[in-house]
Amino acid sequence: MSELDLKYVLDTFFALFSMVLIIFMVPGFAMLEAGLVRTKNVSSVLTVNTMIYAVASLMFLLIGYTVAFGSWENTSMSIWAAFLFQMAFVGKTVNIMSGGVSERVRIIPLMFFTVVMGGFIYPFIVNISWGADFLADTMFDINMYDLAGSTVIHSTGGWALLAAIMIMGPRKGRYKDGKIKVIPASNIPLVVLGALLLWIGWFGFNGGSVGSISSVENADTVAKTIMNTNTAGLAGALMAGILMYIRYRLLDITMILNGALGGLVAVTAGPDLYDMYTPILIGAIGGALVVFAVPMFDRLRLDDPVGALSVHLVNGIWGTLAVGLFVEKISFLEQLKGVAEVGVIVFVVSFIVLFIINKIVRFRADDEAQIEGLDVQEVGVEAYPEFKRAI
Amino acid sequence: MSELDLKYVLDTFFALFSMVLIIFMVPGFAMLEAGLVRTKNVSSVLTVNTMIYAVASLMFLLIGYTVAFGSWENTSMSIWAAFLFQMAFVGKTVNIMSGGVSERVRIIPLMFFTVVMGGFIYPFIVNISWGADFLADTMFDINMYDLAGSTVIHSTGGWALLAAIMIMGPRKGRYKDGKIKVIPASNIPLVVLGALLLWIGWFGFNGGSVGSISSVENADTVAKTIMNTNTAGLAGALMAGILMYIRYRLLDITMILNGALGGLVAVTAGPDLYDMYTPILIGAIGGALVVFAVPMFDRLRLDDPVGALSVHLVNGIWGTLAVGLFVEKISFLEQLKGVAEVGVIVFVVSFIVLFIINKIVRFRADDEAQIEGLDVQEVGVEAYPEFKRAI
Amino acid sequence: MSELDLKYVLDTFFALFSMVLIIFMVPGFAMLEAGLVRTKNVSSVLTVNTMIYAVASLMFLLIGYTVAFGSWENTSMSIWAAFLFQMAFVGKTVNIMSGGVSERVRIIPLMFFTVVMGGFIYPFIVNISWGADFLADTMFDINMYDLAGSTVIHSTGGWALLAAIMIMGPRKGRYKDGKIKVIPASNIPLVVLGALLLWIGWFGFNGGSVGSISSVENADTVAKTIMNTNTAGLAGALMAGILMYIRYRLLDITMILNGALGGLVAVTAGPDLYDMYTPILIGAIGGALVVFAVPMFDRLRLDDPVGALSVHLVNGIWGTLAVGLFVEKISFLEQLKGVAEVGVIVFVVSFIVLFIINKIVRFRADDEAQIEGLDVQEVGVEAYPEFKRAI
Repeated sequence: MSELDLKYVLDTFFALFSMVLIIFMVPGFAMLEAGLVRTKNVSSVLTVNTMIYAVASLMFLLIGYTVAFGSWENTSMSIWAAFLFQMAFVGKTVNIMSGGVSERVRIIPLMFFTVVMGGFIYPFIVNISWGADFLADTMFDINMYDLAGSTVIHSTGGWALLAAIMIMGPRKGRYKDGKIKVIPASNIPLVVLGALLLWIGWFGFNGGSVGSISSVENADTVAKTIMNTNTAGLAGALMAGILMYIRYRLLDITMILNGALGGLVAVTAGPDLYDMYTPILIGAIGGALVVFAVPMFDRLRLDDPVGALSVHLVNGIWGTLAVGLFVEKISFLEQLKGVAEVGVIVFVVSFIVLFIINKIVRFRADDEAQIEGLDVQEVGVEAYPEFKRAI
Repeated sequence: MSELDLKYVLDTFFALFSMVLIIFMVPGFAMLEAGLVRTKNVSSVLTVNTMIYAVASLMFLLIGYTVAFGSWENTSMSIWAAFLFQMAFVGKTVNIMSGGVSERVRIIPLMFFTVVMGGFIYPFIVNISWGADFLADTMFDINMYDLAGSTVIHSTGGWALLAAIMIMGPRKGRYKDGKIKVIPASNIPLVVLGALLLWIGWFGFNGGSVGSISSVENADTVAKTIMNTNTAGLAGALMAGILMYIRYRLLDITMILNGALGGLVAVTAGPDLYDMYTPILIGAIGGALVVFAVPMFDRLRLDDPVGALSVHLVNGIWGTLAVGLFVEKISFLEQLKGVAEVGVIVFVVSFIVLFIINKIVRFRADDEAQIEGLDVQEVGVEAYPEFKRAI
Repeated sequence: MSELDLKYVLDTFFALFSMVLIIFMVPGFAMLEAGLVRTKNVSSVLTVNTMIYAVASLMFLLIGYTVAFGSWENTSMSIWAAFLFQMAFVGKTVNIMSGGVSERVRIIPLMFFTVVMGGFIYPFIVNISWGADFLADTMFDINMYDLAGSTVIHSTGGWALLAAIMIMGPRKGRYKDGKIKVIPASNIPLVVLGALLLWIGWFGFNGGSVGSISSVENADTVAKTIMNTNTAGLAGALMAGILMYIRYRLLDITMILNGALGGLVAVTAGPDLYDMYTPILIGAIGGALVVFAVPMFDRLRLDDPVGALSVHLVNGIWGTLAVGLFVEKISFLEQLKGVAEVGVIVFVVSFIVLFIINKIVRFRADDEAQIEGLDVQEVGVEAYPEFKRAI
């Protein structure tokens, strides 16, 4: 076996390993969101997550991969492994968006948006950031460093979510008489399970984004990337816990987990570039940002039942800028330009697409459906039919 | 390190990776079935799944592997890795069978059947299909192409289940006064979690069945196999969703997941042979078959609480025949012969074994036990003792 | 690529693969314990598990790894991968301890203990057993064989737990008027899910502890280690099931799973050294020990809601001694010396540390908090707010 052949085999195996870890994020998001919403909307949220995986992935197979990378060719590993690794990402952007409009979004129009996002919007962002680079040699050329998608994945999902919340409005009864009604999560073990599966998936997400493990240098980079990724998650969880304890003398587990996820999002742009201590700082700030952003979005009347804006949008921006702050060779201004350009494109295009779809099939479930729970009219299957409701 | 040694190391590592993914199917089946049955039978279903893994795997270690492959030798990878990969399959056939007789089957007689299935019936089927080939040079020689077991695993489990349902009868109260009583799933998040863990396990199941990743050609085949496997699952889910929406204007998540699993079963016979578009067709037909087969088995009064006949038997047959339809070099008649021969052997032998066990220790829980729930008499542990029952 | 470079790449990849499997034990322990305690303490248990991962891992990064291994150097694989693999272990010792004091332990003092355990106690035990070997050339030098930590991990956690139970006392109302009040597990599917995730994590734990897969001999050893690990789990489950059936005519699933975990702990000291049949015996004895130890600890009024003393302490001791009994070249006396020395050090030091912390911030939640449930005062988030309580 030649050295090239050996590298091909090793990197194909490693891409498949990474892809499998990322696919654990499918149950990860599903369990996290199913745990965070009320029991009457659980089947609906689970259906959304499952259908997003099906629709976004098929669109990426049929159209999106070509939009992003131009051609189905690859010489450094199996093209099928390279495709699978990229495909594993696509549903995440829609997951981020769908989670934040839970408990009032209807499934069919969301699937139409998933078609556009999986086939066109997300692949276009990949094209200009990581892929065929359609805008090279123009003034819009993006030169930001974003290893595994603080901007390309997380902010992209976050901007689409912001547009969606503006179009769909808050859940019925969430903001009433100038007050914010607290709606508690219905199943905390599912929240924890989901967040931890996401955490594990992140090892594949970021580690696999190095693209190769088949040399001493690359093996070191992969291992360091996974280590730094994990460290930022640890620091985000710890910081969120400390802040909650200082403020309330309580260790709110949902906030601790969102803090961890915030730290993981924040480190995602540059985990291969940091030394072993910097991710502690980046993750801790990420966790703190979540703690402060969650009530801020509520004051802005942007109703986000799972905290996705705080975790993915705020920390996607923070994480991308952080590379410019902490890594000498990276230009802060190029990072900022990338963040802004992707933000403008995704927000504007998503807003227009969502607006048009909304004119044809309205996104928002009507008040009675929301009160009764979306599971009745959307899915026809109750999540927990045998358990008597206390509220 | 010689090239042979290097391939040995790589293929051992790859077999272990694949085996670990398949073991995720143990919690996969357990959660899927625990979510689909009523709360009063949940502990029982979970005990069955756990004990099947223990009993079937130990029988395969002590007897089954030798029945299937003749000798404990292997030169292309570690024999222990080869064993583990094969062992990971054996419990699945009994899982398929046990799921379909949930809510009335008693555990002890089921364990006796597991001994026979794990030690003899399944290993014999492996022997004549993939293994030592005891029937070579006879008119019963099987030449079907079945990469990862559409027939060898899924139909085998399905035929045993059909025999079991005929012997044990439907659940008490399921078919009454000519009507079919709808019995809803008790915990939809567990159903989704279980189905998605099975999906992930399938990557190891089918990818690992290629048997080697240690050359450029094999690495390509493994990656393509995993990609095609996933695609068929996506298409099965989507097709089931579309059909449910057309018929009921509802996106029944349990049917969507069974559609995905149907697509995954269907592609399992030949994912390495298809181009990248064919699995869309095979999976979509698989998903449609589930949607039509589920009510059909109910009309036949074959009571199958988890839809295992539709997912595993119907699609195991469809998937094996599909290789003959879509791949030029594969003989449709040999596929048909394999399907029929395995079907006859497994159904007849399972029926006889089940019939004999049933004479000694009856399989069916009596009516009072079914009404009270199997957990009381079989396990002694309620699944959710603190949750008040609504029904 | 030189042979050394190739081995470096392969062993780094293998260490990362193993580490990821071990991280599945984080949701594994979390789900197991969340299922075993009452609903009113579920959020608290989940918070403990999440925070332990954060605090213990960060302490190991900042201090513990250096305490254990002296220097951050490694030539056979990436140091970052070696660190990640070792870091994945550290939280487990505290998980074992925290599980056994569930339903009365307060989180903040537990975090103080986690700081000491993750930064100092556990790393010191690693130092003298596997690491820099601070006590070499003294009479306290440890020469026991303990591949993956029957003593170093499981007994260590178990001895710390014993000290903790002695200091914190039993749960309010558990032992009353000379009787033992049975407190049933609240969510059996979570118990099963958690135990099976632990089981899968064990493949990485024990397989990865071989330290290298990059030669034919090492690949064989890794595969055999995983096979023997699994076999002991199977035998432990089966033996516990048989004993429960003989005694009660019931297949108590929580005891079956604890039997499996007992078997897994027991085999952990020497899975690479046994032939393929010995783990059946070692695991079966491990399962039996759990069945007998659980009521014994209750008679001793050592209240352990999850059975951690029986699973981890008793079987950690048994498993370490078993290597001396079943493997000719291993000295039984050296095994016994290792067990005793680690036991004395961990128990005494943990007791002192726990005692001091307890004087500053008391560990035990007061009676009202226990009656109300720890979730109210510790976390501020109910685990299942919408489900009406039957009890």
